Amino acid sequence: MKAARLHNYGEPLQLDEVDLPKPKGDSVVIRVGAAGICHSDIHFMHGEWQKTIPVKLPVTIGHETAGYVEEVGESVRGLAKGDVVAVFGGWGCGVCQFCKGGDEQLCNSPIWPGLSQSDGGYAEYMYIPSYRFLVKAPGLDPKYVAPLTDAGLTPYRAVKRIRHMLNPNSFTLLFGVGGLGSYAIQYLKLLSPTNVITVERSENKIKLAKDMGSDYVINSKNEDVVSSINKITGNHGVDVVLDIVASKDTLDVGIACLKKRGTLVLIGLMGNSFNMPIVESIINEYSVIGSLWGNYNELTEVISLARANKLKTIINPFKLNDVGKAIESLEAGKIQGRAILIP
Amino acid sequence: MKAARLHNYGEPLQLDEVDLPKPKGDSVVIRVGAAGICHSDIHFMHGEWQKTIPVKLPVTIGHETAGYVEEVGESVRGLAKGDVVAVFGGWGCGVCQFCKGGDEQLCNSPIWPGLSQSDGGYAEYMYIPSYRFLVKAPGLDPKYVAPLTDAGLTPYRAVKRIRHMLNPNSFTLLFGVGGLGSYAIQYLKLLSPTNVITVERSENKIKLAKDMGSDYVINSKNEDVVSSINKITGNHGVDVVLDIVASKDTLDVGIACLKKRGTLVLIGLMGNSFNMPIVESIINEYSVIGSLWGNYNELTEVISLARANKLKTIINPFKLNDVGKAIESLEAGKIQGRAILIP
Amino acid sequence: MKAARLHNYGEPLQLDEVDLPKPKGDSVVIRVGAAGICHSDIHFMHGEWQKTIPVKLPVTIGHETAGYVEEVGESVRGLAKGDVVAVFGGWGCGVCQFCKGGDEQLCNSPIWPGLSQSDGGYAEYMYIPSYRFLVKAPGLDPKYVAPLTDAGLTPYRAVKRIRHMLNPNSFTLLFGVGGLGSYAIQYLKLLSPTNVITVERSENKIKLAKDMGSDYVINSKNEDVVSSINKITGNHGVDVVLDIVASKDTLDVGIACLKKRGTLVLIGLMGNSFNMPIVESIINEYSVIGSLWGNYNELTEVISLARANKLKTIINPFKLNDVGKAIESLEAGKIQGRAILIP
Amino acid sequence: MKAARLHNYGEPLQLDEVDLPKPKGDSVVIRVGAAGICHSDIHFMHGEWQKTIPVKLPVTIGHETAGYVEEVGESVRGLAKGDVVAVFGGWGCGVCQFCKGGDEQLCNSPIWPGLSQSDGGYAEYMYIPSYRFLVKAPGLDPKYVAPLTDAGLTPYRAVKRIRHMLNPNSFTLLFGVGGLGSYAIQYLKLLSPTNVITVERSENKIKLAKDMGSDYVINSKNEDVVSSINKITGNHGVDVVLDIVASKDTLDVGIACLKKRGTLVLIGLMGNSFNMPIVESIINEYSVIGSLWGNYNELTEVISLARANKLKTIINPFKLNDVGKAIESLEAGKIQGRAILIP
Repeated sequence: MKAARLHNYGEPLQLDEVDLPKPKGDSVVIRVGAAGICHSDIHFMHGEWQKTIPVKLPVTIGHETAGYVEEVGESVRGLAKGDVVAVFGGWGCGVCQFCKGGDEQLCNSPIWPGLSQSDGGYAEYMYIPSYRFLVKAPGLDPKYVAPLTDAGLTPYRAVKRIRHMLNPNSFTLLFGVGGLGSYAIQYLKLLSPTNVITVERSENKIKLAKDMGSDYVINSKNEDVVSSINKITGNHGVDVVLDIVASKDTLDVGIACLKKRGTLVLIGLMGNSFNMPIVESIINEYSVIGSLWGNYNELTEVISLARANKLKTIINPFKLNDVGKAIESLEAGKIQGRAILIP
Repeated sequence: MKAARLHNYGEPLQLDEVDLPKPKGDSVVIRVGAAGICHSDIHFMHGEWQKTIPVKLPVTIGHETAGYVEEVGESVRGLAKGDVVAVFGGWGCGVCQFCKGGDEQLCNSPIWPGLSQSDGGYAEYMYIPSYRFLVKAPGLDPKYVAPLTDAGLTPYRAVKRIRHMLNPNSFTLLFGVGGLGSYAIQYLKLLSPTNVITVERSENKIKLAKDMGSDYVINSKNEDVVSSINKITGNHGVDVVLDIVASKDTLDVGIACLKKRGTLVLIGLMGNSFNMPIVESIINEYSVIGSLWGNYNELTEVISLARANKLKTIINPFKLNDVGKAIESLEAGKIQGRAILIP
Repeated sequence: MKAARLHNYGEPLQLDEVDLPKPKGDSVVIRVGAAGICHSDIHFMHGEWQKTIPVKLPVTIGHETAGYVEEVGESVRGLAKGDVVAVFGGWGCGVCQFCKGGDEQLCNSPIWPGLSQSDGGYAEYMYIPSYRFLVKAPGLDPKYVAPLTDAGLTPYRAVKRIRHMLNPNSFTLLFGVGGLGSYAIQYLKLLSPTNVITVERSENKIKLAKDMGSDYVINSKNEDVVSSINKITGNHGVDVVLDIVASKDTLDVGIACLKKRGTLVLIGLMGNSFNMPIVESIINEYSVIGSLWGNYNELTEVISLARANKLKTIINPFKLNDVGKAIESLEAGKIQGRAILIP
Repeated sequence: MKAARLHNYGEPLQLDEVDLPKPKGDSVVIRVGAAGICHSDIHFMHGEWQKTIPVKLPVTIGHETAGYVEEVGESVRGLAKGDVVAVFGGWGCGVCQFCKGGDEQLCNSPIWPGLSQSDGGYAEYMYIPSYRFLVKAPGLDPKYVAPLTDAGLTPYRAVKRIRHMLNPNSFTLLFGVGGLGSYAIQYLKLLSPTNVITVERSENKIKLAKDMGSDYVINSKNEDVVSSINKITGNHGVDVVLDIVASKDTLDVGIACLKKRGTLVLIGLMGNSFNMPIVESIINEYSVIGSLWGNYNELTEVISLARANKLKTIINPFKLNDVGKAIESLEAGKIQGRAILIP
């Protein structure tokens, strides 16, 4: 079968013909329906993480995959050939405190296919070591499922972690309306009556934020964000900041917009560090929390929303053969919604 | 009656003879049994907060007060002359979201007696605008109650906020064993089976940490804290850091010691800001939270512990007339436990 | 001023001419805009609670009141003549554990105006002992605010208590679409993506349930509720039961419909007791919880929803002079939505 | 190897010579060090559950097992021959909502070895289908580990579920100081500063309750429980009831002892159902919750306590050959602490 593999960091992927193991025991082979292209893939391919996550190349890229069950091992239960499935990408050890607590994506020694020593979804087929990493998505088209496994899942977990704060008189400030942000707005409105304020710079994204349901949009090109927030909230500030950019700049502004007892959620990975003010954080009991990806049950909940037709997903499809062009487009900032590869 | 009042920022307090209003309605006058001297008092007297909290001087200092009910207004219920009471110092407006939610110390427009435009407890008597700011402490000596209202209360709230994380196989790292830290160790042991690790530099305080029940003590003069933590925790790190110092140094070390999903609690007010690393905080889902003082119910719980004889409080008593000497001793770092004034 | 007062249990109310105290200190007099009529009022008037809550008659009925500030005591802050206000009816002592924790309606020694030794809102004016029991409702008509203080508040608290369970793949079963139930459906949809299933018997109420947004309605006249639930949920059962009827019948059915780890919330007051099965409750980790009215902050959140025009309230207005006719209509089951009195 | 197997419901176990599969893949064979005998085993052997859990006999009894790793499959990680291990008995499917949420004991289709169609620990060796059901217990003797897997685990989960309510001024009422109750007292004291009140009838158990740390013991032979509770709590009632008996009698008394907002935890399985009062439960916001066994992480926490030498376990050892005598003794009520079988 064909697979887009990385042979050397910094070089383009090669479309190789490779063999796939036959599934035994718990394992499954799926026919890839679609594989999302994520900025993380680009960081990985450029070798930015080679020290943190040493990998013996070549490896097939792709951690956002959905498709059809092709063949199952003899111990697999509940899956049949042709079933539409999403691949949950946090392949945990299954025995550490985090796996046993339901957060396999936080495993002490995780495998993330396509981002570590395990082949991902930029391929015609993909080998899944256990059916326990698959979520059924009956009735859905894999093209609209693949983006849910990361772009759709990450903001969902973030929103759930602060959902108890999202009361009718609350305000939530969101930085960034790209692949993740458009889901974040939708989840905020689906899971709560909070008032959503989005910060963006481009006209396209400002329109997108409004279409997704943002109650207010601040154009940070023309407006001072802190002043606008004070105006909107009657000088109280916002209960929650979801920072999907998480650059030093957005974080400084985000902290300055928080209400007493407010929480800032770090989601994006743009910056290195930011200055958390000590006295203000104590006097106002601020919280700053990091949120990583999502867990298996959270993915099933996201897929429930999609199956109930409550979630809008914007895709930008490329053929697997055009993987190079797809990556170039993403790097050039030319992608609206999520770029996906279709074998 | 006599009261130690601040007439000008930066000058010594003056022992003045002043009048006290007669209590009406909900208000109460107490005879002060003891008033704790806190580093915050010194910051206030030096004028460090005059911009943040503008106050028309003179004002009587002291926000850690306990004593005896002297006279009550006609609407006061449940209190009689001679009752031992602690003064809860977060005099909230009673109507904002935080007051109505039970956290009057976080009120949108609070009065903190002795630290704002309201007279505190460095005096023979103190006027309390509502009996709803008093907690009964029957059977206790006000000398041992006064320190509980701040030094004893602040770490109690901090410990309660992360108590759900304090399981038998958890580790809690504590920076600072001064007035607040000795209580923190006690609460950690009373409320949980966590393993407590304390960091200190002086022999006195290292001994105190052990006496209070710390399972491990790291002498940061001789040891590298991160290496010691790795040794103790088998390279997992600690579940919780309670930073009662909260200087830039302790915070950088604290973050570096956190386990996956760990929480750092800011309590002390030494530093200005610290660098929170973004990628590590997301990958490991760290939380950094500020914790301020405590609420009324938390104070009743602290007093329950004292009444059950489960709490050790070390006091260093001075006469009210010697308030100058007492403050000098505190500034010179000569106080063991809590300095208190006795009228 | 005119007030509808109860002179003897079991007898009709009398429209008396009475005097009102002038507000002093914290107290406020409001001009009543509307007073809701609740089944609890009828229980009270019939003397059903005279042993539990002994009251010296006469007393003015009415615990669901909204109106306009008429006159304020000298210590009142933040209110001016003419302001639209809702009366929060759980007048707590302000000092017990529950009041200090933010749940004044659960006070150890509460006053509930109109239902205890304190005059309620079936009158032209009403005396409120503290402005801390008023919630501002600017821009709203008191006619649509009065029902929010109980009929609108009670299901709001109930929904908030189980909100963390209301995920996209969850089911919530609701018994009863009367005054409270129509709000319950709205809150479930506003605060969560849960799938709402309502059980009713009359065509009117089945239509109302659908109008309010219920995803499924079971007509318990024709259908076996447990079988229908099994069909809808794929034999898993429902995550939450909100029982606004809470008769022995609905509770037996409710328990039988619960999913593993499900929660049944008792809200209505129709029955005396029900049989909770022990082995099933343990094996499935069921929870049964009682929920009472709501607290002050919850009322502000409900009013936020009304101000944002997100809440439908159906009223059935009567003149204060026609209070007897209004009560008869309610007892005869002829009221759609909430009956209110307008002075 | 030898195994004590049930061939027909109601008949004594037979000591059979049986073969054991060789471990492959994830599976492990352990040499049994000790197997606890539980009342559930007796219910099962008497056929009381044959309708609920249909099993094809013969089957080896025993769901409380600890021992030494004997042989491991080729995919097993982190275990070596001779390691002391506890067997976690809730063998979940690994893919349902409850397994993925970390509560495998609540799996939608669980296997409980020794209590369902899978052989348990009354044997010389035991086959474990996945190393993910084993918890390492280095340094401990299996004789003291086996009882922890159920008798020690069940009250631990129950205590953790209500731990947030266990403040210094709280009271916890415990019914029953048998195999589970003596652990419950220890956990309450280790995890919280609550005041523990135990109800028992026999002198032996009253002494045991005191030895384990119960602050008060009520002898229900001589005392009226409700009156005693009122005396101890100043008529407030208890915050929590842990009912390890859970008969109709203890539950009626338990409910009557609850404080406002109190929680009753059902743990024991003696009764069929009890009358939950509706109005009182609403007015006081009572909660009644069932608690089942414990999850894997909870078992690791219990074992941490044992390893830190903080947990007292009383055992009553029998040889595997004497299994009949051991069961007779348990049925006759002659066992102090936990009866265990040693192969």
